[in-house]
Amino acid sequence: MSSILSIGTVAFDSIETPFGKADHVLGGSATYITLAAKHFVADVGLVAVVGDDFPEEFLQVFRDHRVNTEGLQVDTLGKTFSWGGKYHFDLNQRDTLWTDLNVLATFEPVVPEAYRRPSVVCLGNLAPNVQLSVIDQLENAPIILCDTMNFWIDQTPDALKEVIGKIDVLLVNDSEARELTGESNLVKAARAIQTMGPQTVCIKKGEHGALLFAEGAIFSAPAYPLEDIFDPTGAGDTFMGGMAGYLASRPSPTIEDYKRGIIMGSALASFTVEAFGTDRLKTVTSEVLAERVTAFDRLTRVTM
Amino acid sequence: MSSILSIGTVAFDSIETPFGKADHVLGGSATYITLAAKHFVADVGLVAVVGDDFPEEFLQVFRDHRVNTEGLQVDTLGKTFSWGGKYHFDLNQRDTLWTDLNVLATFEPVVPEAYRRPSVVCLGNLAPNVQLSVIDQLENAPIILCDTMNFWIDQTPDALKEVIGKIDVLLVNDSEARELTGESNLVKAARAIQTMGPQTVCIKKGEHGALLFAEGAIFSAPAYPLEDIFDPTGAGDTFMGGMAGYLASRPSPTIEDYKRGIIMGSALASFTVEAFGTDRLKTVTSEVLAERVTAFDRLTRVTM
Repeated sequence: MSSILSIGTVAFDSIETPFGKADHVLGGSATYITLAAKHFVADVGLVAVVGDDFPEEFLQVFRDHRVNTEGLQVDTLGKTFSWGGKYHFDLNQRDTLWTDLNVLATFEPVVPEAYRRPSVVCLGNLAPNVQLSVIDQLENAPIILCDTMNFWIDQTPDALKEVIGKIDVLLVNDSEARELTGESNLVKAARAIQTMGPQTVCIKKGEHGALLFAEGAIFSAPAYPLEDIFDPTGAGDTFMGGMAGYLASRPSPTIEDYKRGIIMGSALASFTVEAFGTDRLKTVTSEVLAERVTAFDRLTRVTM
Repeated sequence: MSSILSIGTVAFDSIETPFGKADHVLGGSATYITLAAKHFVADVGLVAVVGDDFPEEFLQVFRDHRVNTEGLQVDTLGKTFSWGGKYHFDLNQRDTLWTDLNVLATFEPVVPEAYRRPSVVCLGNLAPNVQLSVIDQLENAPIILCDTMNFWIDQTPDALKEVIGKIDVLLVNDSEARELTGESNLVKAARAIQTMGPQTVCIKKGEHGALLFAEGAIFSAPAYPLEDIFDPTGAGDTFMGGMAGYLASRPSPTIEDYKRGIIMGSALASFTVEAFGTDRLKTVTSEVLAERVTAFDRLTRVTM
């Protein structure tokens, strides 16, 4: 049976946007990844760490979505990872107000026995050595998707390159792709990443959509043009989770499945940004998702 | 028979990019518009002004493409409009080094009798009062496409709004759409522009493609992901000319025709950026264009 192993952060997020504030809400890459992936696969396992302050109501969110939390370590010696950010009028720009690693600073992921042979692995944004230790615990050869960020490209380039050499799909945003490769042109940057290991590269462009590079082909997916974008936090993680979920639901994913995975990820991310934190994502039904996917499909339809 | 009236600048462009320099090459909005439009319609009339220094070889470019130059005024009292620009490593950013209006400063367009009943009018970027005087000379009700820029939004907002109230399609880039309407969200900005007059709004996003808003629907077109972008000058004008040309070639354009027009404009613009000035655009054959349009179409194809 197909399954997903998701590793990343589970966090307290404090977010300020031009439209309001939210304090201490459930966030973190693994949170968004698992909630998105659950739309496609029953068996989603979470590997992450929280502190002794992690509330029962947040654990209940995972339980409500039947995410397997056997791998969610509770480190009683510290507090949960906490992030604060403020978005500008132009929601493409944000300032990080604080990043309190807390229990994340000493996190050593232990993949439970039951998760070691997944169909798809999602390595959410984390220190590359932590991502590597998860890859080392795998007992099969799943499709591995990996996210990263500028901080790791700057600080731990060698460890990051080791991770990139072992994965199947790298997801980065456009500025990260440029920084990682030193190529200003995104097509060249994607080709350069392919020579580093992953045969599939997905460049995320926020409100401009995403580009998929696979098997010599390029696929361009739009972003859903929303009139009200409330909070962009977690959109990239939701995208990855949706894509991973869709891939895991396919017996042997073809390039068409990768394209569909990107549309699924984009559709789910378009819900995430409609409310603070996970508020909208966690209430999306399969009917509502199907409607949005149809609307997405129409966005680029033209008969030439 | 369908025809296009194109008004705009004909210029000497001096361009510097990270890949080279070109001095004093043929440029200007009307130049790119007419060369692009000619792919679809035989009868393309140019209304613009040049000075006594405009060389025979540049006139020959228009003649070679059978652009009707009866409306190209030669002002023997001055020099041709001249623009100098320098692009950064990130080609999305450029500095204007100089803008010598010369004969453009006193340009009063006279639309030749033969052009006053066109199927489609392209108002290239020019002072709004000059664009208005062209509209006033029309003797029918063609489809009017209009481009503008931040400078006119700042300097002559009232005249610009009068123009916008009389046109059918406004083409602006994303920052111009935001500035014109005070709306950060592009969907809201487009809806606001629609209330100002034009029922169709096209927001150009450079390397991220374009969005079309028409009849309550949204169409998202990608940009062609080129490995080598040499010189972005004229891409937006080429896009407009290609779209206008395609619309003029259709008896009574439907929304599907507008979508196809955007793909045609995007495909032609992808050639313009492959070389300095008009070097690549002016050599594009219909076979080469058809190939690129097919490749464009494949970029977004997925069966959901």
